[in-house]
Amino acid sequence: MMPKGLCQEIRVEDRHSGEEMYRWACDLFPICRSLSGPGLRQTLSYLADLLPGLRVHDVPSGTAAFDWTVPDEWTIRDAYVADEDGNRIIDFRRHNLHVVGYSEPVDRWLTLDELQPHLHSLPDQPEAIPYVTSYYARRWGFCLGDDRRKALKPGRYHAVIDSTLAPGVLNYGELILEGEKETEVLLSTYVCHPSMANNELSGPVVTTAVAQWLAALPRRRHTYRIVFVPETIGSIVYLSRNLQRMKERTIAGFVVTCVGDDRTYSFLPSRRGDTLADRVARHTLARSGTDYDEYSFLDRGSDERQYCSPGADLPVASIMRSKYGTYPEYHTSLDDLSLISPAGLDGGFRILRRCLETIEANRVWEATTPCEPQLGKRGLYPTLSTRESGRQVRDMMNFLAYADGEPDLLEIAERIGIDVLDCAAIAATLERAGVMTAVDP
Amino acid sequence: MMPKGLCQEIRVEDRHSGEEMYRWACDLFPICRSLSGPGLRQTLSYLADLLPGLRVHDVPSGTAAFDWTVPDEWTIRDAYVADEDGNRIIDFRRHNLHVVGYSEPVDRWLTLDELQPHLHSLPDQPEAIPYVTSYYARRWGFCLGDDRRKALKPGRYHAVIDSTLAPGVLNYGELILEGEKETEVLLSTYVCHPSMANNELSGPVVTTAVAQWLAALPRRRHTYRIVFVPETIGSIVYLSRNLQRMKERTIAGFVVTCVGDDRTYSFLPSRRGDTLADRVARHTLARSGTDYDEYSFLDRGSDERQYCSPGADLPVASIMRSKYGTYPEYHTSLDDLSLISPAGLDGGFRILRRCLETIEANRVWEATTPCEPQLGKRGLYPTLSTRESGRQVRDMMNFLAYADGEPDLLEIAERIGIDVLDCAAIAATLERAGVMTAVDP
Amino acid sequence: MMPKGLCQEIRVEDRHSGEEMYRWACDLFPICRSLSGPGLRQTLSYLADLLPGLRVHDVPSGTAAFDWTVPDEWTIRDAYVADEDGNRIIDFRRHNLHVVGYSEPVDRWLTLDELQPHLHSLPDQPEAIPYVTSYYARRWGFCLGDDRRKALKPGRYHAVIDSTLAPGVLNYGELILEGEKETEVLLSTYVCHPSMANNELSGPVVTTAVAQWLAALPRRRHTYRIVFVPETIGSIVYLSRNLQRMKERTIAGFVVTCVGDDRTYSFLPSRRGDTLADRVARHTLARSGTDYDEYSFLDRGSDERQYCSPGADLPVASIMRSKYGTYPEYHTSLDDLSLISPAGLDGGFRILRRCLETIEANRVWEATTPCEPQLGKRGLYPTLSTRESGRQVRDMMNFLAYADGEPDLLEIAERIGIDVLDCAAIAATLERAGVMTAVDP
Repeated sequence: MMPKGLCQEIRVEDRHSGEEMYRWACDLFPICRSLSGPGLRQTLSYLADLLPGLRVHDVPSGTAAFDWTVPDEWTIRDAYVADEDGNRIIDFRRHNLHVVGYSEPVDRWLTLDELQPHLHSLPDQPEAIPYVTSYYARRWGFCLGDDRRKALKPGRYHAVIDSTLAPGVLNYGELILEGEKETEVLLSTYVCHPSMANNELSGPVVTTAVAQWLAALPRRRHTYRIVFVPETIGSIVYLSRNLQRMKERTIAGFVVTCVGDDRTYSFLPSRRGDTLADRVARHTLARSGTDYDEYSFLDRGSDERQYCSPGADLPVASIMRSKYGTYPEYHTSLDDLSLISPAGLDGGFRILRRCLETIEANRVWEATTPCEPQLGKRGLYPTLSTRESGRQVRDMMNFLAYADGEPDLLEIAERIGIDVLDCAAIAATLERAGVMTAVDP
Repeated sequence: MMPKGLCQEIRVEDRHSGEEMYRWACDLFPICRSLSGPGLRQTLSYLADLLPGLRVHDVPSGTAAFDWTVPDEWTIRDAYVADEDGNRIIDFRRHNLHVVGYSEPVDRWLTLDELQPHLHSLPDQPEAIPYVTSYYARRWGFCLGDDRRKALKPGRYHAVIDSTLAPGVLNYGELILEGEKETEVLLSTYVCHPSMANNELSGPVVTTAVAQWLAALPRRRHTYRIVFVPETIGSIVYLSRNLQRMKERTIAGFVVTCVGDDRTYSFLPSRRGDTLADRVARHTLARSGTDYDEYSFLDRGSDERQYCSPGADLPVASIMRSKYGTYPEYHTSLDDLSLISPAGLDGGFRILRRCLETIEANRVWEATTPCEPQLGKRGLYPTLSTRESGRQVRDMMNFLAYADGEPDLLEIAERIGIDVLDCAAIAATLERAGVMTAVDP
Repeated sequence: MMPKGLCQEIRVEDRHSGEEMYRWACDLFPICRSLSGPGLRQTLSYLADLLPGLRVHDVPSGTAAFDWTVPDEWTIRDAYVADEDGNRIIDFRRHNLHVVGYSEPVDRWLTLDELQPHLHSLPDQPEAIPYVTSYYARRWGFCLGDDRRKALKPGRYHAVIDSTLAPGVLNYGELILEGEKETEVLLSTYVCHPSMANNELSGPVVTTAVAQWLAALPRRRHTYRIVFVPETIGSIVYLSRNLQRMKERTIAGFVVTCVGDDRTYSFLPSRRGDTLADRVARHTLARSGTDYDEYSFLDRGSDERQYCSPGADLPVASIMRSKYGTYPEYHTSLDDLSLISPAGLDGGFRILRRCLETIEANRVWEATTPCEPQLGKRGLYPTLSTRESGRQVRDMMNFLAYADGEPDLLEIAERIGIDVLDCAAIAATLERAGVMTAVDP
């Protein structure tokens, strides 16, 4: 499954294993994350230990961000529904998903009929606890398996949610890895989902591994902007503070989400559909030795909604394994640590890394001589002319035929039908031979 | 068959029924129309009674119009071929088509052999009287069923055509319905065909109904230029008088022809093939709930020949039911009132009206906020986040994703896969919510 | 197989028969050509007798041409391998291909084992002598059938090559046929292959016939630059002396190679793929009444490598019969005079001639009147209007619909689905009628 032809120049020692990413996910899984609050801060703190330079920002509740306002901070301490005997028949301590996210505090006795409107379950998946939130309208509620719900007997129930909704802060993490150039590549993942694995701990842990790899590179041509945000409000807040700079500098970006299972690969293009991010992702996935599903931008559902909105219009695409919304465990308690695997996380990591290697390698080349150079005298072309010439010579001559200072490396690779990193190796060989020069700044 | 999602804002009480249009056609059918003359004037007078503001123009014979010259006016009073016993065996009084259009006067006795070169019939359709004209070369002739022709016995025949070809005028009707803007939409139909129904009384009666509908609209964004001309020379004369203004202002136009039968729908694109007229017609036909035949511009044969000629190059397409030249009754006495129907005319009317509704609705929109607006606080987005979101929300978010001040409504509707008038309703909702603004002047 | 609709205006008496071209090939076949030397000069001298005005250029060894240097001149007088009894078991006198091109002199006795590294054969084609050269690295060697090689017995062999590699000249032939305009069409063929017929005597003899045809034309709109070069180094030298002028003036060009057999037709596009040369070739081949194989530019292998290199970027395509590298006899002694035929050469000639006729005819036309002109009064349109109109009238009206001063004749012909030379005839008719004018300079 490992793609061939890796560009040796930009590879470093591979110290990131799927096992390591999986351990991080196991550590983070039990934390009850939300848009804001202690669980989110605890998660960012864990990641900051892995990523020197990661800066955790505080944004006060009530701060305006374009059309939005940062909501109150939510703290959840306990939540349960007890029967008349005091038995906790729905218990937040057993699973974070049992409480509707951002539930306001409650402490009431209700009949079953009164309780029902506050309960959420999935008749088609009776064993699954659904993931439900109510960030922007005050509500309280509980989620549970539909089997359990149907087993509830008439009677009186004690609903208790020990939570606080009060002015506080919204947090996000930001890591800037400076490169030789000001051009930027964005990686964005989200850290607001409680106790679900593919969607969404896979994104944060794979992004962390990629960021470690990027930080260790001997050189980076581009600057990397890596953000860990609560979904939607987090990316909106982030854009409201960085939009102008990001519009000027971003050449490509990826939303990293649902990259942990081992079932398939998926691609969701940017709004424009033909940006560098799209081209790199398609080339990489097409040559990864595996099939992948390509979705429409109309199927989007995460922070690319904000990054690709008309006013931002950033070149941001999504590379995934099983896309959110498409697999049965999505947004339920079934999306647990058994759904992701070291191999699944490793696949997500490798595809994303390879995309970034491609962006690093993607220069514009121009031959230094009007006709074909005489490669024979440089040991790059056979001096004995017979009927056959090798594939390698053919690829090199084809690269020369298109390296006219206009197409980037990726476009040439697509035209001549080879892997872009093999194409980068050809360019490097010809540059060393003195017959090729990079013309991008 | 009625398309869904009609934009309520621009609909008015539907007082046009297929029955009414059919009655008009019945009234007009017996009149012997031609390029010029009393029959043409009588027809225009009838339509003027239905269309307040319709102005009937006179253009003197001999007037130059680009490469053409307005021919003499033709008046036909009687025409027949009689046998030696005085029996009228071909009689203009029985069918207008029996005389070749623009026949010069004649009063001669001939043998059958001498008569034959002046007779026209269709061996493949022995019962049909063909429609034959000779506008620009002096001739005389008669048309008849091939069965009748074959039954003619040797002998002497008396050919009489009581006609006048003399300087007079060419007439056409013109109705300008002013809108809020100077941008114009052209509707053109032709009124020179004698006693044929689909081609061509359907065009004039459907155009008349559409013009009544347009005139009654509470507001029109665009100005409507509606012309009833004799075919070819009429549109050339009209263009010679209005070309500069039409080139500057016309955003779309339709030649209205063959819109009366109930067999199929047809589309013939403009010369450029991708103008607003083409896009609107294709979108409307594709969503009309019925199949349609798309022809090539190379198959053109009516006044779009002039409107789309290189020197005019107007964005004019044709929406038809059974296209001229493709159905067996075409240009014969078989194209009679039994070929068209109230339902057929109604279908033509509805498609054309919907195209005009679309043009009225087709604005360019831009979101007022860089990221997604917060629709939840405006009651347009669910505040409880569960796994499913409805089709309506999805369409609205997709509209927001493309409304960046560049594509028109129609382009966005095509991209997000919904009907353009449903898209207009979304735009109106978002405009009312204060998060969307129209940027076209 | 002869295409229909030849433009009569630009045809001249056809004095070129396949038989004549075949006789020239027979005369030239025995000469031992190479990159340089007496055989190349003898060949150019023969062609100069057929082409008044052909100028043979001398370029001294050591001359720099971009990244290349003109090599020493090679003269070969004799070459053989003899056994101990003095029997010539490999003998250059029997076939030119027995000696590796550009072999340095040798006169040595060797064991069979010592001899083997200097021998070249094709195990898959045991009867064929392969064509092998070593222009830019000093070597000596012999080529022979693999059967013969396997039959060699252990023993001592006397290898003798009586050759000279010394400073001299490289030669090429150049014929400029001036036209009314400075715009140029390039024809390039190569004259360095010894004793092979399709690749490559067919190119020189067909080019010679086409040049004779061009020279005899009563008028030429464009200037024709016709070159006979040794492959690769010859085209590079030629470009190094003429590049600026060729870049400024060349509107189309063809490498003429492998045009002598009678099996198929082939097309290899230019680097850009949509130049005038490509469009003309595709139109002509598609309407030649025969199938053809279209190759990718990635399959190139002759002087288009230089003409289409990024620094030259000339609009040069290749029209062939069986493409080099694709037929079994390629680059062996089996590519002999039995492989080509008068009919094969004639097919190559006719396709190429028709392409040049098309380029001559390919003007930009504009109607002189805004609407359709009144063709009836000029005898070009029926004055009696019945249900049918002929194909000829339809083509003429379609030509009028697109002749707006923008597309060239070829583009209009493709749009309206007729042969470009039929389209030229329509344009000429309309020009004579005064309703059409050419707008290209």
